[in-house]
Amino acid sequence: GHPVYRDMPTTIFEKMSARARETGAINLGQGFPEGPGPRDVLQAAAAALLNQSSQYPPMPGLIELRTALAGHYARHQGLNLSPQDIIVTSGATEALSASLLALVRPGDEVLMLAPLYDAYVPLVERAGGIPKIVTLTAPEWHITRAALEAAITPRTRILLINNPVNPTGVVMRPTELALLADLCVAHDLTAICDEVWEETVYDGQPHRPLIGFPGMRDRTVKIGSAGKIFSVTGWKVGWMCAAPALATLLARAHQYLTFTTPPNLQWAVAEGLGWPDDWLVDQRATYQASRDRLAAGLEKAGYAVLSSGATWFLSIDLPASGIALDDVSFCERLIDEAGVAAIPLSAFYPTDPATHLVRLCFAKTDATLDRAIERLAAFR
Amino acid sequence: GHPVYRDMPTTIFEKMSARARETGAINLGQGFPEGPGPRDVLQAAAAALLNQSSQYPPMPGLIELRTALAGHYARHQGLNLSPQDIIVTSGATEALSASLLALVRPGDEVLMLAPLYDAYVPLVERAGGIPKIVTLTAPEWHITRAALEAAITPRTRILLINNPVNPTGVVMRPTELALLADLCVAHDLTAICDEVWEETVYDGQPHRPLIGFPGMRDRTVKIGSAGKIFSVTGWKVGWMCAAPALATLLARAHQYLTFTTPPNLQWAVAEGLGWPDDWLVDQRATYQASRDRLAAGLEKAGYAVLSSGATWFLSIDLPASGIALDDVSFCERLIDEAGVAAIPLSAFYPTDPATHLVRLCFAKTDATLDRAIERLAAFR
Ligand SMILES: CSCCC(=O)C(=O)O
Ligand SMILES: CSCCC(=O)C(=O)O
Repeated sequence: GHPVYRDMPTTIFEKMSARARETGAINLGQGFPEGPGPRDVLQAAAAALLNQSSQYPPMPGLIELRTALAGHYARHQGLNLSPQDIIVTSGATEALSASLLALVRPGDEVLMLAPLYDAYVPLVERAGGIPKIVTLTAPEWHITRAALEAAITPRTRILLINNPVNPTGVVMRPTELALLADLCVAHDLTAICDEVWEETVYDGQPHRPLIGFPGMRDRTVKIGSAGKIFSVTGWKVGWMCAAPALATLLARAHQYLTFTTPPNLQWAVAEGLGWPDDWLVDQRATYQASRDRLAAGLEKAGYAVLSSGATWFLSIDLPASGIALDDVSFCERLIDEAGVAAIPLSAFYPTDPATHLVRLCFAKTDATLDRAIERLAAFR
Repeated sequence: GHPVYRDMPTTIFEKMSARARETGAINLGQGFPEGPGPRDVLQAAAAALLNQSSQYPPMPGLIELRTALAGHYARHQGLNLSPQDIIVTSGATEALSASLLALVRPGDEVLMLAPLYDAYVPLVERAGGIPKIVTLTAPEWHITRAALEAAITPRTRILLINNPVNPTGVVMRPTELALLADLCVAHDLTAICDEVWEETVYDGQPHRPLIGFPGMRDRTVKIGSAGKIFSVTGWKVGWMCAAPALATLLARAHQYLTFTTPPNLQWAVAEGLGWPDDWLVDQRATYQASRDRLAAGLEKAGYAVLSSGATWFLSIDLPASGIALDDVSFCERLIDEAGVAAIPLSAFYPTDPATHLVRLCFAKTDATLDRAIERLAAFR
């Protein structure tokens, strides 16, 4: 045996961002917005540094933040969560690792859908679990009962999903979510739902949390991220929501992983969640306009763009754009020759990757998007 | 099988702090200073929130912080670390969990000394390791070759120590450290050294990092904490230092546990580490005076106080104080009847606890210490 992490590379997001920093490329790779984040939330965090305690907050998070989150989810998603159901974590990544370390026993099978976020498989394996991957297919990425049932065995204990989906921009359809809920109940699975993109959904679509589906309230961990909601990816304030029996287990893992999360950032997020929702409506409209700007510019330049209903990402289809390179070669040449960083979709597959798609982050200023479009147009 | 965390309680520190919050007891339990932390470092963090990026910093931490840490350790401990040897984490707790998840393979034995910090055994077990505990004995807590060699087997791969030691306040003696280094080299062990108390050492003693001992440079992970150095326990900025081969593995675990740590707090710590050391000398003198004040007050009230050379803690010996209660009963009655929270030393033993000692945190204002002494005096 050797350590689980021995053969793993540095995550593609870090690698591409490091290359962008070194070369000065326009970074449409790693997902982060170009702006500083809402001024009010930055100011609230700065004020809390000077006026509130910098000592350990309670291990599960400030009660003010947990209360604000319960209120937010009641208003936005019709959920009935109590503050006690919510544990604040050092980013959604910690929520994911705490959930998996808390719930996966050695030998448990964990059902996942590919393409998937690159942390999932290493975390499942490090927890002793066995990844069972159902691969979905572009451009619709439909989830089918037959594919899921073929992957479920008596050892399957957990379903780990991301909705809305990074990298595809899919918002799971109600029928798909009902199917997932159905299977969880039928096979007694616990669902871990990475819903960090819940507030970046466009075209008037609602976000439907799996925890709200019949039979799911007591068997679901819902994960969220202030970094995504408030466009401050460096803050690393996340949370996990679950019914008491699950939440107790999650708290055990959390207390030994990071113990707690900086209180001043928690204060600011609590404050921000209390604002009237106009700013969030505006932010969503801005991201949607950025998506449309990048898509239109790329299409005009001859690229085939897949539709994206959520997240900060859209993908281009290389063969449909008349480009003969695979995704990795395209991204290598794009950063070296055109000065634009992007992410090959194959990075989101543990096996049998699609190699014809490239992900671009549109959460940038118009000027940056226009410069990137120019470079991508010239590169063809 | 059941999840590793199923049978674990909430950490004693959180439990006691929650009770102190509810009852208004003076909290000498969980280790945190009463003050707000140095004003300059709070202001640096607030300024960074407004003037620097709130997006993802590099995964291993800001190069400015890693460089500042290398400089700090060169000046303070004569170490020759490069910034690339240092990975910033979301607190020393994350550094511990990342180190153990990176380095422990299922079945590996991990050698530890009790009394020990309560996160160690759950983290080792969650990583698949087998805890091998050598129990030390009050009041000197001496480490002996015979006890260690009796615990080492061919499956022992890691030595996990805390130095200076929480809860005992011991600063490991040079002969003990040389012995540990010797055994690591002889048995090919990797040392994980939790040195979060390195800057809270009193009576003019130096801190001697195990990584500086012969043969240890390439086999040691040195863990540190800005929360402890700057008296801001809620900040959750820590780090792990190791030679490149080890550091690469540690970074793998870190990138999937939390990915990164809030950049504004990293900026502030980098700035603080660059200040002339006077403030650190002053801070140490203040903590030493607080230790002396609490010890003298307790002795005057008839308590037998064990000597403490480091950390924010000292212990009282119940039978030597003429008190017939065990540590847990004493702490229960102390918080209920006298309104003072403390930690029973048995919480620091996975098995065979000493039950005659109680830990008190002295990192408080003189007024708080005096009130606590009064209550403890009246309680006898
Ligand atoms: C933790 S870096 C990755 C950020 C992100 O969500 C993405 O780019 O997919
Ligand atoms: C993470 S809470 C514990 C803080 C501490 O170091 C202690 O009280 O021992």
